[in-house]
Amino acid sequence: MSEILVVGSVAYDSISTPQGKAEHILGGSANYFSVASSLYAKVNVVGVVGDDYAEKDFELLRSRNVSLEGLQQVSGKTFHWQGKYEDDMNEAITLETQLNVFEHFDPTLPESYKDSKYVFLANIDPELQLKVLEQVRSPKFVGLDTMNLWIDIKKDKLKEVMGKVDVVLINEGEARMFAGTMNTVKAIKEIASHGPRGVVVKRGEYGFMMYSEGQFFVLPAFPVDNVVDPTGAGDTFAGGFFGYLAKTNTEVNMESLKNACIHGCLIASYTVEGFGLSKIEKLDWSMVEGRHNKYRSVISYNQL
Amino acid sequence: MSEILVVGSVAYDSISTPQGKAEHILGGSANYFSVASSLYAKVNVVGVVGDDYAEKDFELLRSRNVSLEGLQQVSGKTFHWQGKYEDDMNEAITLETQLNVFEHFDPTLPESYKDSKYVFLANIDPELQLKVLEQVRSPKFVGLDTMNLWIDIKKDKLKEVMGKVDVVLINEGEARMFAGTMNTVKAIKEIASHGPRGVVVKRGEYGFMMYSEGQFFVLPAFPVDNVVDPTGAGDTFAGGFFGYLAKTNTEVNMESLKNACIHGCLIASYTVEGFGLSKIEKLDWSMVEGRHNKYRSVISYNQL
Repeated sequence: MSEILVVGSVAYDSISTPQGKAEHILGGSANYFSVASSLYAKVNVVGVVGDDYAEKDFELLRSRNVSLEGLQQVSGKTFHWQGKYEDDMNEAITLETQLNVFEHFDPTLPESYKDSKYVFLANIDPELQLKVLEQVRSPKFVGLDTMNLWIDIKKDKLKEVMGKVDVVLINEGEARMFAGTMNTVKAIKEIASHGPRGVVVKRGEYGFMMYSEGQFFVLPAFPVDNVVDPTGAGDTFAGGFFGYLAKTNTEVNMESLKNACIHGCLIASYTVEGFGLSKIEKLDWSMVEGRHNKYRSVISYNQL
Repeated sequence: MSEILVVGSVAYDSISTPQGKAEHILGGSANYFSVASSLYAKVNVVGVVGDDYAEKDFELLRSRNVSLEGLQQVSGKTFHWQGKYEDDMNEAITLETQLNVFEHFDPTLPESYKDSKYVFLANIDPELQLKVLEQVRSPKFVGLDTMNLWIDIKKDKLKEVMGKVDVVLINEGEARMFAGTMNTVKAIKEIASHGPRGVVVKRGEYGFMMYSEGQFFVLPAFPVDNVVDPTGAGDTFAGGFFGYLAKTNTEVNMESLKNACIHGCLIASYTVEGFGLSKIEKLDWSMVEGRHNKYRSVISYNQL
């Protein structure tokens, strides 16, 4: 087992979906990722919170053996996102974004983080992603996520970071936007052309498409009939993905990348079953294995 | 091997997609289905065409051992559909529908068709679907497709036919519309509650979801980077599905239904690579097997 470093947002979210509402709940990519990946390995978080950040919210991660040494607490309010989902649960509609202390976030790695072997650069400014990469000494496997904003305003910088990571994990809509094509097969190859050895396109309820070593690996999501809140599904996918790789900590190859995708997919299928972190903070290993067995039967057939 | 009966539309289509245009090409659900399923078994077509229907278009099906005894030719023009696809190739935009001779279509089965064992009721008025069902003697396996129009204006009749068939094959958007929910897992169960032993939801580039005997079977489409024209993908999915069942002609169970879905999925992946029937009319068995092998590698992993 090896340590994972994540840098991303730590936030409070207010979310409304056809299934209900949740006000001011814990969120942010770094939190979603950490809760998921801490099921597999030790996690080191780099982020920033304001002085309104609740003690119980620090405690949730500490209790899961997540290091918060790199979580800066500064004067001001914590990042707050307000969003809603309408019938189409695949798309979040942002109602308000208050960056607050996140606006001037300057990621600094504590000495103890610098030897982390697995590094996930969640969706933040690509310049900050680069800054984090410059501070880690000899990572074994690095991944990034991004969003439409950075594709819009910092595409060249984003391409530069893509050239320095092992894997890009990206939403399907953003992959298409980045590549300028609605065809996901073309888009994934275009992203791969910038250097990462693997690209994983996250397709929400349709699962994922991975491309690596000239091969595709494509599978659907586990069928869930009670989708309560899709927020964080992508970040917990990344959490399961990196968690799996760090836990096994063997040579990364096509087969381990495939298994990493499966774990991401399984964890994400739990995430959407509750608001915020409510479902995945209760996840244990037997639940992951149980769903894996069911998942295998959902996607398996004997060729007759 | 056993004979397949299909009833559906026979049409000329004018289609425009981001990849180009095709004017007045052969189309219609019965044609798409027949070209696909004739790769597997003998097919009997029930439909109607006008006096403008070209000899070469009859000949295409005859050359594939498709019986056209039940294809009525009447005075007037053949059904004509004009449509386009924009960037989102998952959705056809209808520009014009000229029903022409199809408006008064009254399906009558020649005596030689009445013992067909596999029956596919393509997307036509559910009253006509019932009328066809009343004429077949002892079918072994019957399926239907439908569309938003019939869900809108003849839902009760449609439910009645669903109760008389073995499988419902339906687009994802229409499944959601029928069931009044955006959750496909819920929608597929709702449709199954009307009686069919299996329901297959066709998800375009995302593949399919099948539900039967309380179990799900879900897989993605084969990744295609040159989607030229999605028209007919759903009908050729049905063609591969029924073709497989008729060719093997053994007991229909979960495993054979799964294999039928795979064949549907493979054939549909070829359909979208060309305008109209251009790609699938050249399909041979080695192409199906070749893609099946590639498909297996795209969806397979060894659990580590």
